[in-house]
Amino acid sequence: MVRAVALRRPVDFDDCAALDARDPLATLRDGFCLPEGVTYLDGNSLGALTHSARRRLLDVADGGWGRRLIGGWSEGDWLEAPARVGDRIGALVGAAPGQVVVSDSTTLNLFKLASAALVLRPQRGAVVIPRDDFPTDRYVLAGLGARELRTPERGGLAGAIDGEVALVVLSHVDYRTAELADMAAVTQLAHDAGALVLWDLCHSAGALPVALDACDVDLAVGCTYKFLNGGPGAPAFLYAARRLHDRLRSPIQGWFGHGDQFGFGDRYEPAPGVARFLTGTTGMLGVAALEGALDVWDGVDLAAVRAKSMALGDVLIDLLDGRCAGLGVTVASPRDAARRGSHVALRHPRAGVLADRLAARGVVTDFRPPDLIRCGLTPLYTRFVDLWRAVEVLREELGGGR
Amino acid sequence: MVRAVALRRPVDFDDCAALDARDPLATLRDGFCLPEGVTYLDGNSLGALTHSARRRLLDVADGGWGRRLIGGWSEGDWLEAPARVGDRIGALVGAAPGQVVVSDSTTLNLFKLASAALVLRPQRGAVVIPRDDFPTDRYVLAGLGARELRTPERGGLAGAIDGEVALVVLSHVDYRTAELADMAAVTQLAHDAGALVLWDLCHSAGALPVALDACDVDLAVGCTYKFLNGGPGAPAFLYAARRLHDRLRSPIQGWFGHGDQFGFGDRYEPAPGVARFLTGTTGMLGVAALEGALDVWDGVDLAAVRAKSMALGDVLIDLLDGRCAGLGVTVASPRDAARRGSHVALRHPRAGVLADRLAARGVVTDFRPPDLIRCGLTPLYTRFVDLWRAVEVLREELGGGR
Repeated sequence: MVRAVALRRPVDFDDCAALDARDPLATLRDGFCLPEGVTYLDGNSLGALTHSARRRLLDVADGGWGRRLIGGWSEGDWLEAPARVGDRIGALVGAAPGQVVVSDSTTLNLFKLASAALVLRPQRGAVVIPRDDFPTDRYVLAGLGARELRTPERGGLAGAIDGEVALVVLSHVDYRTAELADMAAVTQLAHDAGALVLWDLCHSAGALPVALDACDVDLAVGCTYKFLNGGPGAPAFLYAARRLHDRLRSPIQGWFGHGDQFGFGDRYEPAPGVARFLTGTTGMLGVAALEGALDVWDGVDLAAVRAKSMALGDVLIDLLDGRCAGLGVTVASPRDAARRGSHVALRHPRAGVLADRLAARGVVTDFRPPDLIRCGLTPLYTRFVDLWRAVEVLREELGGGR
Repeated sequence: MVRAVALRRPVDFDDCAALDARDPLATLRDGFCLPEGVTYLDGNSLGALTHSARRRLLDVADGGWGRRLIGGWSEGDWLEAPARVGDRIGALVGAAPGQVVVSDSTTLNLFKLASAALVLRPQRGAVVIPRDDFPTDRYVLAGLGARELRTPERGGLAGAIDGEVALVVLSHVDYRTAELADMAAVTQLAHDAGALVLWDLCHSAGALPVALDACDVDLAVGCTYKFLNGGPGAPAFLYAARRLHDRLRSPIQGWFGHGDQFGFGDRYEPAPGVARFLTGTTGMLGVAALEGALDVWDGVDLAAVRAKSMALGDVLIDLLDGRCAGLGVTVASPRDAARRGSHVALRHPRAGVLADRLAARGVVTDFRPPDLIRCGLTPLYTRFVDLWRAVEVLREELGGGR
């Protein structure tokens, strides 16, 4: 894909249409049920419904629950769903099979894995998380009872990691600015200090290639309702590197994480492998939609997804520079696509009001107080002409005229 | 409803048909999508799909996720769902509004509430749970790090509760035998010793009247996929008595339990009330199905549900006595309906094989190792003639002839 920035003149509508015409991922949009008349730039908050997710949801509701009833559990494939769907997600985040399960929410998975990590480093009392990382991550860690919670600036991690640190927790892509962390470097930094590292992949799974195994990551969590299009509050996933499995213990000893779940024995014996982090009964309707949603990824090259995501971001920034200059909106995300995830944040002093006015005109973005508007770029269904329309509406709302 | 046992002769098919004909709850069965040719006596494991659950699920999938997208969260009624649906369940378990939320799984809710309870009794090191209580409950408590886990026989609770005990956890209805505990008496016993009590309502919510407030219960958890028909792995609920709210802290500090969830502040400030036990993003597909499933309860008198449940159990036992005598199957549940929940357990040395053979002939029950078959009685859709058919098939499989 030719980078739009190579044009050396402002991007115009025809450029956007031309980029769409030669987009190798363009036909994937047909897999989505998108409402008419809406320019949806909030797939980074809630991914869109796919036909396959809807189909699989109905299969499990009508064919499973409705017709087979308890047979879905006793004879069907429901019990294996957390591992089966987990492996499909693993393939999208660079994890070999047997290291990812679908379970609970990101919050709960972070709680389980972070608790388990602290037990592995009993002599160390500190946990590190950037102070502006996602709130639920900070809150969960603050509640773990570690002796010290260090919250450096995102850029000041190196200075905060020393021999006292048990665990470093970090979002791979910053939820506000989309700044992309160097997974290999930070993991190495933590390991050099003898600490474990836990990555939050909420804004990277399905948005860009992730290489958990190759980066020697210890632990990771992520949601599936953003770029993986699993549905509102879809079940989350967790990753634990195979080399750690035997030593990790979940603080929540639920029957789905038991090695002999239906033996109903007296003692709790954790399941072998990452399944020990399962807890209660799997919510099959949510898992069904997620499993269907993953179908759209079959055969998709993540390098192509990344290339389109970077181009979308570059084009959006070019459009803003070219058409909204002087209208009070600035780019709050890295301008270098290599340092940016798959959204672009704009800064404006009245961002909340502006986002509402955009939404009223069918351009759906996301307001993050106090002054950010996030524009999510979802390469499977966002078109370049969508960016053109969004920026035109933004320009008009900012008083830039038609 | 005339009790079948008043007949003083063995119940026959015509008696069953007559009981169905005058069953005031009979028309509720029309609300369910039940497969043809199946006698379903496993609603105590997975309740059946209702038309209203299916409708609401599709509303949220197509109309919410598909059409409104992020608007479901930002403008719709999704954020309030845990409390809204929780209050509807509260009405079925004797809890005034504002004390029940829908959240996570039973396992996770037990973990959160039991952890919070131990913090309220810091000087006490013992937790009590009957040794045969449901496995996940025992496993979760064993993992909490209490100094002592006391596991008396279910009948020997009184001897295990003393001034060392912080918390007593108990299933209201025993998952194997259906034995019903005296909620008022056990709660009083715990309180007299200065302990808190946490009831597991998995086999009682929707099966019989529960009086949490009236019994002065402290804490309770329960699933919604059995007698409440919420769907496979439907979200669970938790109850905390209002008088305790201010002092209870969840060990899992997630953003959905924050008092100002979207303020994204530095400190974790728990939400007022029971909402502080919410954790991560609510799985809306599961909640949608559950919310729809609860519609079938509108206007239903729980006393009538209990009366029918008791009659179903009495008739089933009468049929077994009258038609399967000497064939090797015995009743493992209390014969006194007042001491029994809403299933009847049968004991047979080859229960597993027998349950499979019943299932092959369309009579769906539930095998619990080593020797129990549970027959779930779900008053909203189980008919007396279903019991007749089940016992006839059982009799034939036991060699009793046609």
